Amino acid sequence: MKTTIIGLGLIGGSFALSLKDNGLSDCIMGVEHSEKSARRALELGLVDKIVDIDEALAESDLIVLATPVDTLPVMATKILNRISPNQILMDMGSTKQELCEVTMMHPNRGRLVATHPMWGTENSGPDAAVHDAFRGRSVVICDKELSDADALEQVEKIYSVLGMPIRYMSAEEQDTHCAYVSHISHITSFALALTVLEKEREEEHIFDLAGGGFESTVRLAKSLPQTWAPIFLGNKYNVLDVLREHIHQLQILRRMIERDDRDGLIEAMQRANKIREILK
Amino acid sequence: MKTTIIGLGLIGGSFALSLKDNGLSDCIMGVEHSEKSARRALELGLVDKIVDIDEALAESDLIVLATPVDTLPVMATKILNRISPNQILMDMGSTKQELCEVTMMHPNRGRLVATHPMWGTENSGPDAAVHDAFRGRSVVICDKELSDADALEQVEKIYSVLGMPIRYMSAEEQDTHCAYVSHISHITSFALALTVLEKEREEEHIFDLAGGGFESTVRLAKSLPQTWAPIFLGNKYNVLDVLREHIHQLQILRRMIERDDRDGLIEAMQRANKIREILK
Repeated sequence: MKTTIIGLGLIGGSFALSLKDNGLSDCIMGVEHSEKSARRALELGLVDKIVDIDEALAESDLIVLATPVDTLPVMATKILNRISPNQILMDMGSTKQELCEVTMMHPNRGRLVATHPMWGTENSGPDAAVHDAFRGRSVVICDKELSDADALEQVEKIYSVLGMPIRYMSAEEQDTHCAYVSHISHITSFALALTVLEKEREEEHIFDLAGGGFESTVRLAKSLPQTWAPIFLGNKYNVLDVLREHIHQLQILRRMIERDDRDGLIEAMQRANKIREILK
Repeated sequence: MKTTIIGLGLIGGSFALSLKDNGLSDCIMGVEHSEKSARRALELGLVDKIVDIDEALAESDLIVLATPVDTLPVMATKILNRISPNQILMDMGSTKQELCEVTMMHPNRGRLVATHPMWGTENSGPDAAVHDAFRGRSVVICDKELSDADALEQVEKIYSVLGMPIRYMSAEEQDTHCAYVSHISHITSFALALTVLEKEREEEHIFDLAGGGFESTVRLAKSLPQTWAPIFLGNKYNVLDVLREHIHQLQILRRMIERDDRDGLIEAMQRANKIREILK
């Protein structure tokens, strides 16, 4: 199988490595508009060669979109316009409603498989790519009934070989869930970093006092703004909904602290502890 | 050196293991009001025997307080009332102002060394104790000028052997800094768990969709309420201050998302990214 990956950052780069390491593709091409990233991806051996979209369409069995989510609807449509019946297009974006709505009526919609592998780190660019990134993580496939059986089967096979349990849901469901289990975590992390940077003047102290839990909650604040702004805006209504609820929960805890309501605090934290049962 | 550790949970238990593993104490006694925890601490070999406060005072060179922070001022005072000039008392609590204020004028204040090792996990009880817990983490020693030189030196030696860089500051400074680098992280984590548990009905999805960043930001929500309620309330004014700023930052991000202010979001996240330079 010949594959082209469009977007050679954290996700695209790691997917390239996974395809190679698992013998799933004998030639991996890359499309990358940043010259620096393209060069680096070649140096790192993420891809065998850099091509343009025309070459990708001429030579690939599988085309993978791994660019920021706001670029997906237009890019996917343009590729579907020119795709042949034996080629497959898949994307790896964190939000799905816009992509699935825009491509919904496309005569070649069946060639697209809309996926979201639930993996990421706070790092970005080709250098952030890691081997065996996806193993054990879930992958969501959206609106699978709109994909052709052979395209779906091929993409399912790839994710299975990578060791990823597959979940099926509508684009709408996926975006709601991801607001809760991913997008809000990034927002709170960014806000926490801003809180500390805003208030804390003695950076030396921040550094030294790491170890108190701060690193894990603030880790995601290192993530790439150009990746995350489109995700928050592309999932705007779900994200605003979760954010409203989260601020509400913070305000409840704040009032309990103000009132020295020890019992209330303990009860609320015991409810929060239930996350242990769910998340192991 | 004979040591008694009062409170055989995550911190006290791990400290017992560190003292033993590093040959710092040839006999470690434990005081523990929970019979179950006392038995478990013995089974796990955290301590050589369980004693009461009288025996601890009769037999120990070093007495370590590792109980919830709201218990520290009274317990430290009672122990200082009966401590001899060749014995040392130290505490390991996460807030320090109350303890240091209450003990400030005590004639035996010099025997107390007020410390806060910057380490913890979301787990609790004797079973949460781990070997080599503190290595590489900072420890804060507060108001060191109020400790006798020999007591201070002995405690510094212990933390040095454990591989912990020592930072000196006033109790007030330490409580402010910890509000920013530890306490707020726990509050946001608890609030995030409550947000998700409140809204998300399909627990199966939460479980499956782990991998999106949620686990790291919500990890601290597994922490023990009985430990953290006293910390939040004992550091009330600093915690409220940080919490107000944090909610403010979340509201700014929320308004940007509402207004589709992509540039504003990217600029804010780029500022947040600076945490990378500080926290490595």
